[in-house]
Amino acid sequence: MTRLPRSVTAPRGFRAAGGTCGIKPSGKPDLALIVADGPCDAAGVFTRNKVKGAPVIIGRRHLKNGSARAVLCNSGIANVATGQRGLRDAIAMCKAVADELGFEAGEVLPNSTGVIGPRLPVERITGYTPQLVRSLARGAAADAAVAQAILTTDLVPKAAKRTVQLGQTRVTIGGVAKGSGMIAPNMATMLVFITTDAAIAAEPLQQALKTAVDQSFNRMSIDSDTSTSDSVCVLANGEAGNRKITRSGRQFDAFADALTDLGKDLAYQIVQDGEGAEKVFRVRVTGARSVRDADKVGRAVVDSPLVKTAVHGGDPNWGRILMATGKSGASVKPERVTLSVGGVRVFEPGGPIEITPAVQNRLERAMAGREVVLAIDLGLGEAGCEWLGCDLSRQYVAINADYTT
Amino acid sequence: MTRLPRSVTAPRGFRAAGGTCGIKPSGKPDLALIVADGPCDAAGVFTRNKVKGAPVIIGRRHLKNGSARAVLCNSGIANVATGQRGLRDAIAMCKAVADELGFEAGEVLPNSTGVIGPRLPVERITGYTPQLVRSLARGAAADAAVAQAILTTDLVPKAAKRTVQLGQTRVTIGGVAKGSGMIAPNMATMLVFITTDAAIAAEPLQQALKTAVDQSFNRMSIDSDTSTSDSVCVLANGEAGNRKITRSGRQFDAFADALTDLGKDLAYQIVQDGEGAEKVFRVRVTGARSVRDADKVGRAVVDSPLVKTAVHGGDPNWGRILMATGKSGASVKPERVTLSVGGVRVFEPGGPIEITPAVQNRLERAMAGREVVLAIDLGLGEAGCEWLGCDLSRQYVAINADYTT
Repeated sequence: MTRLPRSVTAPRGFRAAGGTCGIKPSGKPDLALIVADGPCDAAGVFTRNKVKGAPVIIGRRHLKNGSARAVLCNSGIANVATGQRGLRDAIAMCKAVADELGFEAGEVLPNSTGVIGPRLPVERITGYTPQLVRSLARGAAADAAVAQAILTTDLVPKAAKRTVQLGQTRVTIGGVAKGSGMIAPNMATMLVFITTDAAIAAEPLQQALKTAVDQSFNRMSIDSDTSTSDSVCVLANGEAGNRKITRSGRQFDAFADALTDLGKDLAYQIVQDGEGAEKVFRVRVTGARSVRDADKVGRAVVDSPLVKTAVHGGDPNWGRILMATGKSGASVKPERVTLSVGGVRVFEPGGPIEITPAVQNRLERAMAGREVVLAIDLGLGEAGCEWLGCDLSRQYVAINADYTT
Repeated sequence: MTRLPRSVTAPRGFRAAGGTCGIKPSGKPDLALIVADGPCDAAGVFTRNKVKGAPVIIGRRHLKNGSARAVLCNSGIANVATGQRGLRDAIAMCKAVADELGFEAGEVLPNSTGVIGPRLPVERITGYTPQLVRSLARGAAADAAVAQAILTTDLVPKAAKRTVQLGQTRVTIGGVAKGSGMIAPNMATMLVFITTDAAIAAEPLQQALKTAVDQSFNRMSIDSDTSTSDSVCVLANGEAGNRKITRSGRQFDAFADALTDLGKDLAYQIVQDGEGAEKVFRVRVTGARSVRDADKVGRAVVDSPLVKTAVHGGDPNWGRILMATGKSGASVKPERVTLSVGGVRVFEPGGPIEITPAVQNRLERAMAGREVVLAIDLGLGEAGCEWLGCDLSRQYVAINADYTT
């Protein structure tokens, strides 16, 4: 395994801890805590699924005032479809942390990931919280403990760090993520926790986060299913000492770009760890009438089971890419479309390119790699985007079908 | 194999033939022809994919006047993404039949199904047409020859027949279908050809067909991909001698109901023969605010890879059904939803039902069958619908990934 990058305690003024409170039958780590030394501006982006987990409902509520100081996350049980009881359990999680650290429950963002349906054994969480708080620390070990404790079916922990110069000040952004299937064997979800020592007000922070999420996590798909618990949140404590960002401008752009870049890094790690995935593919859409149209095409192609299986089999089957482009709902004129697979042009406005043995050879080499680029130019406008997907393998079916009850 | 039902020559006044013109490398039958003895009112419904095959473009054009006399269909190559040349080839197919039978090319509906991209070897089709026309016949053998010659990756031929009483007259409707993946290993599509001896004008015929298609073929999904060649057409020659249906009313309703019932029969056969499928599942949606909402939920559940793999594994994983319901885009209030799996209630407005060992037992028995019913009551209104889906198996991945180029 490659060394895990530094993450949530890389920015100044954050501590973190991960541990095992006993939710997972496997006995693996299942509780993570990130705490800021002082108050933070905070922002969050949550699942659009109409069935939302209790922690999503409570987390949104706690973020309403644009501030937060801690993120608590358990893995193993998602606390979704648990009714009023689930809401009370999510609040109890927050309260345990707040009591121990001497602040308000409303300053804690609760997260849970895992099986949908069962009640959260919240007393295990609250009982273990004092010990978890005592082990809060800074450094690579603390970062890794958090990245580990939030996993469910993920095979590898996911972490990233970026630094960005804001005027005279260097600020740091760190993040951890989990996610493997949108819902894995009864397990739920994608979670991302980001910390930064940048000084940035809640409103521009929310805007920067939305931009970053739209260009990273909202442009990837492992299996087209949207979890009930997806959450991305960011805490900004201002300890870097930059002049506080309060509106759009050069500093905001620099920060938002770094946040987007960090998001893309984590998104790539999530797709790479997609259930059963052996390959990542990028879908580069250009020449669309609007970004909305480009996104429709990107999503249709990364979600198409026939494209995903073709990537899995290393088959440069461009007819399927064209099919998915056409069904996407975007403005598409087949006579304007250009397609390339791994940099090799296969279809242009005049019709298919003749696939000579030499071209076929290049195509098969391109498809054999661990990362494949599918480029689609719609020839209708100036808008574009890039989506990330992974292949569909027998292993995906095995993971999700053979989970015996 | 069960005996194939009678189909396209069951109504009076139709003849049919199937043969081998040499498009498929396997040497299997690849050309089918259905011909009416006299002029017919005709209607068609075609793919919504913006990338449309040449036969779809020409077939729509030939149907503009509401009449047609013959359907010609080759399998093996789809004649899609073939530019101007493809359009000329589709017209040439029609002309060959028309020349031989002494009518206009515009009275023939062309269809092609198979690989996307390659040029159609149209001279094999035109060269074989005279022989095909000579073998036109009525009866079970002719019906079976057509059902066979239109297949690509399908494992079994698909046919159905209905009779319906219109006033004093009994009319017959017969149909054949092909379809296994929306696009199979480089192959395309769902095709349905229906004949009837009912007298019904083109306009109500189109309306009846649209109703039937919306409730059958548009409510099934094998792999969520929309082919570039999907076509359903119906020829009505009036030979039954019923008083011609020219507008809505009791006779129209009776005919449309029979057509819908035939469509559902063929749709079931298609899903049952889905690539790699071992099980069919019905998603019954009730209590929706609108049929549109009910359809969104039905589609989201049948297309969810996590629901499909759960069905495959016989896992009564209702959390995934709830997840798919929530992501569908329909109006959904989780606190109003009731879910049943195989007739066993698992979730109700109050929250999850306690799964006792006895309940678990019933659930597992229900999931073990060849057909599983998932019922979702949204508790918000009066609208509902039923969708058909099939499981996602390793075999689906194998069929679609291991097709080596």
